[in-house]
Amino acid sequence: MSKKIGILGGGQLGRMFLQTAYDYPFEYAVLDPAPDAPCQSMTSHFVIGDFADYDAVIAFGQSCDVIGIEIEHVNTAALAALKAQGKTVIPHPEALTIIKDKGLQKAFYTEHGIKTPPYYLIDDASGIDVDKMPPPFVQKLRQGGYDGKGVQLIQTTADLALLWDAPSVIEAFTEIDKEIAVMVIKDQQGKMAVYPAVEMVFDPDLNLVDYLFAPASLSEKQLETANSLAQSVVQAFDCPGVFAVELFIDTAGTVWVNETAPRVHNSGHHTIEAADCSQFSQMLRVLAGLPVGSSNLRESGAMINLIGAPGYEGEAVIEGLAQLSEFPNTYLHWYGKSMTKPGRKMGHITVLGEQTQVASIIEKIKATVRVISR
Amino acid sequence: MSKKIGILGGGQLGRMFLQTAYDYPFEYAVLDPAPDAPCQSMTSHFVIGDFADYDAVIAFGQSCDVIGIEIEHVNTAALAALKAQGKTVIPHPEALTIIKDKGLQKAFYTEHGIKTPPYYLIDDASGIDVDKMPPPFVQKLRQGGYDGKGVQLIQTTADLALLWDAPSVIEAFTEIDKEIAVMVIKDQQGKMAVYPAVEMVFDPDLNLVDYLFAPASLSEKQLETANSLAQSVVQAFDCPGVFAVELFIDTAGTVWVNETAPRVHNSGHHTIEAADCSQFSQMLRVLAGLPVGSSNLRESGAMINLIGAPGYEGEAVIEGLAQLSEFPNTYLHWYGKSMTKPGRKMGHITVLGEQTQVASIIEKIKATVRVISR
Repeated sequence: MSKKIGILGGGQLGRMFLQTAYDYPFEYAVLDPAPDAPCQSMTSHFVIGDFADYDAVIAFGQSCDVIGIEIEHVNTAALAALKAQGKTVIPHPEALTIIKDKGLQKAFYTEHGIKTPPYYLIDDASGIDVDKMPPPFVQKLRQGGYDGKGVQLIQTTADLALLWDAPSVIEAFTEIDKEIAVMVIKDQQGKMAVYPAVEMVFDPDLNLVDYLFAPASLSEKQLETANSLAQSVVQAFDCPGVFAVELFIDTAGTVWVNETAPRVHNSGHHTIEAADCSQFSQMLRVLAGLPVGSSNLRESGAMINLIGAPGYEGEAVIEGLAQLSEFPNTYLHWYGKSMTKPGRKMGHITVLGEQTQVASIIEKIKATVRVISR
Repeated sequence: MSKKIGILGGGQLGRMFLQTAYDYPFEYAVLDPAPDAPCQSMTSHFVIGDFADYDAVIAFGQSCDVIGIEIEHVNTAALAALKAQGKTVIPHPEALTIIKDKGLQKAFYTEHGIKTPPYYLIDDASGIDVDKMPPPFVQKLRQGGYDGKGVQLIQTTADLALLWDAPSVIEAFTEIDKEIAVMVIKDQQGKMAVYPAVEMVFDPDLNLVDYLFAPASLSEKQLETANSLAQSVVQAFDCPGVFAVELFIDTAGTVWVNETAPRVHNSGHHTIEAADCSQFSQMLRVLAGLPVGSSNLRESGAMINLIGAPGYEGEAVIEGLAQLSEFPNTYLHWYGKSMTKPGRKMGHITVLGEQTQVASIIEKIKATVRVISR
């Protein structure tokens, strides 16, 4: 039998992984609690079960040679037990345990001399010490935050009433000039590949991320710093995997590490079309014990999320799909979710080209394409 | 429910179609008689059944909105019945009927003034008329030929004893300078896209196809002729679809049509990495009623088939996979066939770059990579 690679999580990241993984001579299985998860229809080895449940992960892992993840909220105790049994588990459960808890993650950066904003930890709202760190500051829930959820800005003393009464990181507020991300891959032999930094481009009117663009427009020195900070994070975790290191550059030009995701990431979606080797191909290579591939960008390009339109909930349909298919250098990635609701990530679109060109195509996409309900 | 697209045939072409099709908001089903066909593990809608059987195709087609093919040896009567019921069937059964029979196909070219070598038809070996066309000539079985099977060269009168006793096309032998192929796509709205011609590059020692290279190195005039001949073939078939028009150029420089495949094809595999839009994305667009995409080549490149090595039969394994993963600009596509045997197509490899570079990488691949049994 060929090597069997099991993935915890059957969402869109797992879906795009499978699309690429089918190019390689291995077998794949996916564990997800949702019977209609994006991976469900695209593999005959889809197992319904909760990746956060010890027994479910153990049972799933027994049937695999290698276990990987596409979401970090998994049962790390089960992964540790599988690793102790001799299964290949990537990333290591020890690294996952640290990353899953933003408090441990901050402590880890500090311990390893990695530049991250000052912080302290609280168990509940009563732990706040405004003498130590007066507002404005950021509260981040230690556990379970995702896609911007579980993070809030406390701007003034009056805002203290809004504090969540839960274990949190309280982090100094930083005036951010640019948010960037650097994808780093480390294979089982220890060899690394680093993609050029990606930049979140904000809509100046809405103050929302408009699209991601790669490579980020940074000074040579900032690029080097970001690249080397991201690599030092992955070296510190001391384990193979695909990592998205999120950084920001403050208004003084200093580069800071914000946080790390131990998996393929939104910030790497453009690599499917823009890079020699996509982040999903890298994930396969790392899990299969193959060498990392080239992270060279063949082309610059943008990635825009395709979000459920406000006011529509139900069976999803793409308005403007035919027009979208005619835009040049434009690539749709639909996530196979049957139901849309406002704000749900339903897919993404990559546009290759120089930034002014892609910005103009993105304007057209936004004016034409919506995910609505039938 | 979203549109359901059913494909007759679950081999490697169906597999690569599905990999791309998962980027789009439709449902997919596959019909194939082999329980372990390349598509089996990668869709939850894999139906075991014979695409050459009337009832099996009717039953499968009833559950779909659109029916496409990845092999031409399908039951065209069933497709005609499904089309009459109002299902979208691409390509049209009428075109398939002509293409499946090399005799009808030759007559069709002649009827439409498309330049193809002189021929006559025989019902069996007794129909040979050496006065009309003395050896050397080529015998092609009218039905069931595939991948070079069902074609033989009758060089001398002595060779007449080798004639197959079956309905055949007897075609004048042509001294071939180059074999090329042109992929043409026609969407449901009638818009066409044409990829630059691909050239079969022969190994001068072995006299076997070594690799396919795109674009073909032809004179401007030959390129134009090939392109326009291929388009005229597809216009004559008067139906939407993806078509591989195989042509050759004789030693006098004349371009001839050899034959047409009404589906994605080996000659278009390089488009996955080398073109704006791959042949598989084009197939999806045509089936779904979307506009054809750009057939512009971003890069030149080669495609080499990965064939089961002589002397090995059994469970397949790739020797040299780690080394292969390190070659630059090199992309593996494994077809997911568990068993190898000598000569079986197990996958292909695309190498992007200029011809001298890719030729050197292909030499390394041939020296390193083999499909053997475990």
